[in-house]
Amino acid sequence: MILNRTRRAAVAALLATVAATPALADEGKWLPSQTPQIAAKMKAAGLKLDPAKLGDLNLAPLTAIASLGGCSASFVSSEGLLVTNHHCVYGSVQYNSKPGQDYLADGFLAPSFAEELPGAPGTRIFVIESLKDVTADVTRGLSDKMSGLLRAERIEASRKALISACEKQPSRRCDVRAYYGGATYFLQQQLEIKDVRLVYAPPSSVGNFGGEIDNWQWPRHTGDWGFYRAYVAKDGSSATYAKDNVPFHPKAHLTIATDPLKDGDFVMVAGFPGYTNRLATAAEAKFQYGTYYPAFQKFLSDYSDAIMAATAGNKATTIAYASIVRGADNYKKNALGQIAGAEAIGLNEKKAADEKAYRDWIAASPANAKYGYAAQALDRIVAEEEQRQIADMRRSALNRAQLLMAARTALRWAQERAKPDAERDIGFQDRDRQSIVERLTQIERRYDPKVDRILFEQAMREYAAIPADKQDPAFLAAVKAAGIDTLYSGTKLADTPTRIGWLDKPVAAFEGSDDPFIKLAVAMAPGDAKARAEGKDLEGRDQMARSVYLKGLIAFAASKGEAVAPDANSSLRFSYGNITGKSRDGMRWMPFTTVEGVVEKTTGREPFISPDKLVAAVKAKDYGRYADPILGTVPVDFLSTLDITGGNSGSATLNAKGELVGLAFDGTIEGVVSDWYYEPSINRSISVDQRYMRWVMEKVDGAGRLLAEMGVK
Amino acid sequence: MILNRTRRAAVAALLATVAATPALADEGKWLPSQTPQIAAKMKAAGLKLDPAKLGDLNLAPLTAIASLGGCSASFVSSEGLLVTNHHCVYGSVQYNSKPGQDYLADGFLAPSFAEELPGAPGTRIFVIESLKDVTADVTRGLSDKMSGLLRAERIEASRKALISACEKQPSRRCDVRAYYGGATYFLQQQLEIKDVRLVYAPPSSVGNFGGEIDNWQWPRHTGDWGFYRAYVAKDGSSATYAKDNVPFHPKAHLTIATDPLKDGDFVMVAGFPGYTNRLATAAEAKFQYGTYYPAFQKFLSDYSDAIMAATAGNKATTIAYASIVRGADNYKKNALGQIAGAEAIGLNEKKAADEKAYRDWIAASPANAKYGYAAQALDRIVAEEEQRQIADMRRSALNRAQLLMAARTALRWAQERAKPDAERDIGFQDRDRQSIVERLTQIERRYDPKVDRILFEQAMREYAAIPADKQDPAFLAAVKAAGIDTLYSGTKLADTPTRIGWLDKPVAAFEGSDDPFIKLAVAMAPGDAKARAEGKDLEGRDQMARSVYLKGLIAFAASKGEAVAPDANSSLRFSYGNITGKSRDGMRWMPFTTVEGVVEKTTGREPFISPDKLVAAVKAKDYGRYADPILGTVPVDFLSTLDITGGNSGSATLNAKGELVGLAFDGTIEGVVSDWYYEPSINRSISVDQRYMRWVMEKVDGAGRLLAEMGVK
Repeated sequence: MILNRTRRAAVAALLATVAATPALADEGKWLPSQTPQIAAKMKAAGLKLDPAKLGDLNLAPLTAIASLGGCSASFVSSEGLLVTNHHCVYGSVQYNSKPGQDYLADGFLAPSFAEELPGAPGTRIFVIESLKDVTADVTRGLSDKMSGLLRAERIEASRKALISACEKQPSRRCDVRAYYGGATYFLQQQLEIKDVRLVYAPPSSVGNFGGEIDNWQWPRHTGDWGFYRAYVAKDGSSATYAKDNVPFHPKAHLTIATDPLKDGDFVMVAGFPGYTNRLATAAEAKFQYGTYYPAFQKFLSDYSDAIMAATAGNKATTIAYASIVRGADNYKKNALGQIAGAEAIGLNEKKAADEKAYRDWIAASPANAKYGYAAQALDRIVAEEEQRQIADMRRSALNRAQLLMAARTALRWAQERAKPDAERDIGFQDRDRQSIVERLTQIERRYDPKVDRILFEQAMREYAAIPADKQDPAFLAAVKAAGIDTLYSGTKLADTPTRIGWLDKPVAAFEGSDDPFIKLAVAMAPGDAKARAEGKDLEGRDQMARSVYLKGLIAFAASKGEAVAPDANSSLRFSYGNITGKSRDGMRWMPFTTVEGVVEKTTGREPFISPDKLVAAVKAKDYGRYADPILGTVPVDFLSTLDITGGNSGSATLNAKGELVGLAFDGTIEGVVSDWYYEPSINRSISVDQRYMRWVMEKVDGAGRLLAEMGVK
Repeated sequence: MILNRTRRAAVAALLATVAATPALADEGKWLPSQTPQIAAKMKAAGLKLDPAKLGDLNLAPLTAIASLGGCSASFVSSEGLLVTNHHCVYGSVQYNSKPGQDYLADGFLAPSFAEELPGAPGTRIFVIESLKDVTADVTRGLSDKMSGLLRAERIEASRKALISACEKQPSRRCDVRAYYGGATYFLQQQLEIKDVRLVYAPPSSVGNFGGEIDNWQWPRHTGDWGFYRAYVAKDGSSATYAKDNVPFHPKAHLTIATDPLKDGDFVMVAGFPGYTNRLATAAEAKFQYGTYYPAFQKFLSDYSDAIMAATAGNKATTIAYASIVRGADNYKKNALGQIAGAEAIGLNEKKAADEKAYRDWIAASPANAKYGYAAQALDRIVAEEEQRQIADMRRSALNRAQLLMAARTALRWAQERAKPDAERDIGFQDRDRQSIVERLTQIERRYDPKVDRILFEQAMREYAAIPADKQDPAFLAAVKAAGIDTLYSGTKLADTPTRIGWLDKPVAAFEGSDDPFIKLAVAMAPGDAKARAEGKDLEGRDQMARSVYLKGLIAFAASKGEAVAPDANSSLRFSYGNITGKSRDGMRWMPFTTVEGVVEKTTGREPFISPDKLVAAVKAKDYGRYADPILGTVPVDFLSTLDITGGNSGSATLNAKGELVGLAFDGTIEGVVSDWYYEPSINRSISVDQRYMRWVMEKVDGAGRLLAEMGVK
């Protein structure tokens, strides 16, 4: 487990040769409500704002922070202008491109409000409105005597009821998430804005400069920004796209910094980080890094190798499967980075030492006996969970057969739809239909029967590697009975309307179908249901033990005057830190890169192409007002100790006064282990400097209109 | 082509942020006789010695420099103690190890002279005695009217005659090498010392710390040193190993530096660099990087992939082929680095610009017409050579079938042996027999018939990719007639005595043999001879054109007051430069690493293991007298601009006073392109600091006897 603290001693040696050695910030993705607990430390780190106001969701900066669902963003004008990462608006840029109009390559800049383009279908802006502690509501009536299954079902029912009540308000999207393993629950309410328009994206040669080669690397020179605008109906209500919708007026927007940012400066970031596991037990970390990640890495390698082999020399299928391969390779790179990172920091030893300190504290006082029982229970549950994880991974390969995945999803939908909405499983309520339709639709662009069949056969080999008693005989019999040839020759699910049509059919229609993939899904359903029930039972028992165990951890930290940040769970958080490079013996990473570095890397070949205008401006030293007084040139990207993870992409990086100084967009490969353990000597996040953004907007892309709107022209 | 000059302007921007920006040294692997031409520049760079004496082979430091054949070394005591790299004494350490006595793992230190161990068979020390310009002898009687073949044969005959006369002196090894494409020839005479004993090698955990992972990388922490001693007969003559031989007394030995080395300091290196191509034409470089290296990289990938697949799961064959795979992977890594490096520095553009400057100078004066003709002729010859290179590469795959290689070598030996020694081809004279025997013997440790067969089949596929008119129908017919099954089932060549026995048989015995590999070699011989003759013809024409072309280049340089260093050709050279790190935007390589970095990298897993005593000494800050006053700790490796290449391994790195400050052992992957083009902003060589060597010798390995012998205890 991780408590908030500095590890100054440990890194002092490493940083001894760095001229400016800022105090390293505390780790933690903090809840807004935790501001009072860490106010003194933030002030010490350099915060100039009143920490009490920082936690207020109705005031800037937090009220200007929005989610795009998977990315973070922030309002930068009173007219609903929203800045985020280029890779977060990428889908909308791609959606609006067509032959002869390549906005990905050329960039896009709307000359006026009227020429702003509708975002890709499904693009949403979620504006944070409230975060409310609903622990009492969620845990009411739970008893330690209940089975895990009943406990999990009760919690789920409470959560759904709270969500449903919240979403009775128009255009609100609500979630109830667990914190500290279910010791706490918060209801997060967001306004859902459905008319989202693309305002500006630089060319990919800026926005994705360095591409996959530079991904997770430093030095970095990516101009990873893009702009949306939120539109609402004339009456101010959220509405789907209509030509006469008007810009949304956020309660507040961020101000762009004018003071130069420099090495050592305080920075903070607000956004929606995805998932971390810092509060996991030492045993969980050991299993994850020693067993799961190595297996997962091979699992993904085999997958992408199979696709590469199956699509080699065929341009159409190569394109169709490109994003799947890219995704698998990205996860694989992450897994390799995780393994290397864990080794580099000695993760097991550190987790074990931290856990021992906590458990020694438990053992030292009879008053803590309940934490001791919880620890024992949790250890047993974790051992049980480990046994499932590798099997679950192998089982998941079956959904790579995309029509089988569609059939299983549709059947599950039909089964859940037979119940009242509030009683359905999460993910299968009316509120989820649209995303299921989108998931089943996109198969049309990613499916090839020959490739799919090869992947299905590979998935069957993965399945065969599951211990025999964990395999589903009904499933195996059904595959054998159908025969793989028939599965592919007999199905109609490759046709999109047919596939989507199944979402409207009752369970009986599935049971009577002769479509071979539907039949296979029907055969699998009982086994799937049984596995889900077992999973839910484990989940209920996990919540019971872990919530107590982590309450104990909070008490242990409090006994030392420290606070514990909850693991990330895609809800609003903020982190603070400092601008700083990194050293190892014989090498230094400087905290800033510069426009000269962009030119230095530019080879004219992907992914190192730069716009001619940009290169010419650098060569002419035409820095405008954006030159940094220390660097003597325009900064591009910067490193900081900010504690972020996936989901933070697009998050505003703010200075000590809460002004926007950059946009967080990546970490470094050495730091990916921070999802499990934060090591301040290693972990760095990468932001693009707003001065580079403005310099490109002024000197290269001619986006003066937006600079004026942000009040910086 | 490359002329000697600085590129200060081009790198000024890159280095602008580096505190100490030393003047970058001139490139060039200089001949001792060129000292007067570059004396002023060396003095300006910081040389404190008299440049006139520096070029004198009878004085220190040059007279203390020796070759190990493939590595460089230097005498460091009057008792014949010789220091070089760990990887240069590796074979002797391995040779003396056996189960229960693992000198590779544990290191080896002879407690006394008497306990020094014989080196591996074939270990030699070559002590440089003279370098004499023999251009007039070699080129006497050549005429522009001769065919290329005749010209090449005449040159070869002259060279052999000079070598043979020189080697009439006892225990001398002589070579005549071409410089500037054959514009100049030097006869290099070396004393061959045959009794070479292993004195000291640190454990591989020091000597090869970082292994393949750190190879060609910075930051580096390798303690790459090892010690031999040269022994001679009691009468001072060179002799093979005998217990009562006595230490050799070199004319001079190097002194170990006592002043601390620091960033910016002048350094120079003397050794035997292998081969470079800096004086190649722009067209040659373009072909090499655009066509040859990419093809070669794939050629090697396919090779090592095939071996990996063929040996997977079989420990015996995995070990047997390990060094072959390591070799292929090393060349592949080099080829990839070459390609990346050429792209990074814009090699084609730079070569083209340099060449244009020279050719414009030619065109500007009628007196230079001869160079113009030579340029045209050379361009045509280069185009012809390019056509051969890829085919030659594919053809070379046939020798991966090791018994075929043995059969071809033995037959060639028999054919050449039928002639008087002086008329034989180079490499097939009596002086070469021992190395041929060794080559054919080592097959016994690297051969497996199943793997070999797979590699032969792969080689046949490579052969099939050669244009049809360049294939040898006799060879193809012979393979078909034999059938691959019979080749492997019918041969006796897998037996070492049988294989070596063929070296004593006449050509007729080959022609009458029914060993299928011998028969195949016999079938290939006429085609091989024809190809050799064609190659020789091309070589003669190349020498004729290139020697004039490069004489012109020297004249062009002289017109600007500059000198041209010849390309490396394994003969004695020296280079000078400065200690300096390297910067790119957002990152700095510091010039020194430190012992703290060794501990930082130590994970306890290969290749990052360190002796406990070393780690403890670092943790205790037990630096002894070896701490650098600026770093505050013991330096390990350092970067400099020294212009070295393969063959320089083990070369003494000397300070401005000619004292030993380190041992060169590697370059960086970004710099491998320097074999074709030296870019001072990119090219760095890596030396191990003698202070780290002495610190380990004193604190870890207890080698006080040797420190005392070197006069530094």
